[in-house]
Amino acid sequence: MPYVTVKMLSGRTVEQKRALIEKVTEAVSETVNAPKENITVFIEEMEKTDYGQAGVMFADK
Amino acid sequence: MPYVTVKMLSGRTVEQKRALIEKVTEAVSETVNAPKENITVFIEEMEKTDYGQAGVMFADK
Amino acid sequence: MPYVTVKMLSGRTVEQKRALIEKVTEAVSETVNAPKENITVFIEEMEKTDYGQAGVMFADK
Amino acid sequence: MPYVTVKMLSGRTVEQKRALIEKVTEAVSETVNAPKENITVFIEEMEKTDYGQAGVMFADK
Amino acid sequence: MPYVTVKMLSGRTVEQKRALIEKVTEAVSETVNAPKENITVFIEEMEKTDYGQAGVMFADK
Amino acid sequence: MPYVTVKMLSGRTVEQKRALIEKVTEAVSETVNAPKENITVFIEEMEKTDYGQAGVMFADK
Repeated sequence: MPYVTVKMLSGRTVEQKRALIEKVTEAVSETVNAPKENITVFIEEMEKTDYGQAGVMFADK
Repeated sequence: MPYVTVKMLSGRTVEQKRALIEKVTEAVSETVNAPKENITVFIEEMEKTDYGQAGVMFADK
Repeated sequence: MPYVTVKMLSGRTVEQKRALIEKVTEAVSETVNAPKENITVFIEEMEKTDYGQAGVMFADK
Repeated sequence: MPYVTVKMLSGRTVEQKRALIEKVTEAVSETVNAPKENITVFIEEMEKTDYGQAGVMFADK
Repeated sequence: MPYVTVKMLSGRTVEQKRALIEKVTEAVSETVNAPKENITVFIEEMEKTDYGQAGVMFADK
Repeated sequence: MPYVTVKMLSGRTVEQKRALIEKVTEAVSETVNAPKENITVFIEEMEKTDYGQAGVMFADK
């Protein structure tokens, strides 16, 4: 606790994901006073056909 | 805002997803008085082995 | 199936939520060819202090 | 209702998932007094690069 | 890991929730071969106005 | 996009939440190369009776 989920378009590298997990954990730890050991991060990827804004599929933009 | 997530079995076509995003956005906009520009739709697909009802995996039905 | 979750700021009336559930169900049914009987809608409300964009809490905007 | 989501690392067999759906449904039914017919289970799988604890990606452990 | 979320109508007692957490943890541990120590359970409650099936709000049934 | 959800026990102050939204947005922006304007953060709070680990409700620890 806390549990952080980052939902984003697919395509990031493993290096980017590694940095994301490290830096988000630090940001959460510092701001809500939780030990890093207790923080969990999940990454969820989505495709451009599974995401839309203002009624328009992202793949069509 | 609002953010809409539609979770369903995989297999729909891109055309169906495009229509889904468009029509769900309109339905949300009209009923809760939110501009279409502010509405986001996510689609999440699941497999028949990852879904069950009444204790029975969907793939076994 | 499908399962639809609508996440939005708190404050809508019961009448708005009733219309939201009805109209979103119709939109999903028509576009992905699912019987209305199989469609479930969840509404999740959030407070203005629990939501931010571009690094700014919504309550501060 | 209830709706149960089990998020875990990918790699379980269909037999394990079948047993998971059956046994979790029974556990929920018995403890919160809900008929099994009303209980839905979703399984979500994640990869070792999409999960981290204490700031460390699981794939690096 | 695994992480289990149980979403259900509000109104269960603390005793029911305690039993739910205990028994669901056992069911997951036995079926997917995960130590109980690694299993986390979240309970999410919803109101009858925030849930609908077949286009009808649960509060109206 | 990306969309970040932070789930944690209730009780944080508005100041802590404000800092959380700001710093998590920065961490995500820097590591996955997304403009801050595109990043959304949601905070979800849970009670001690709605969370358990190793089969034990957090309120009992």
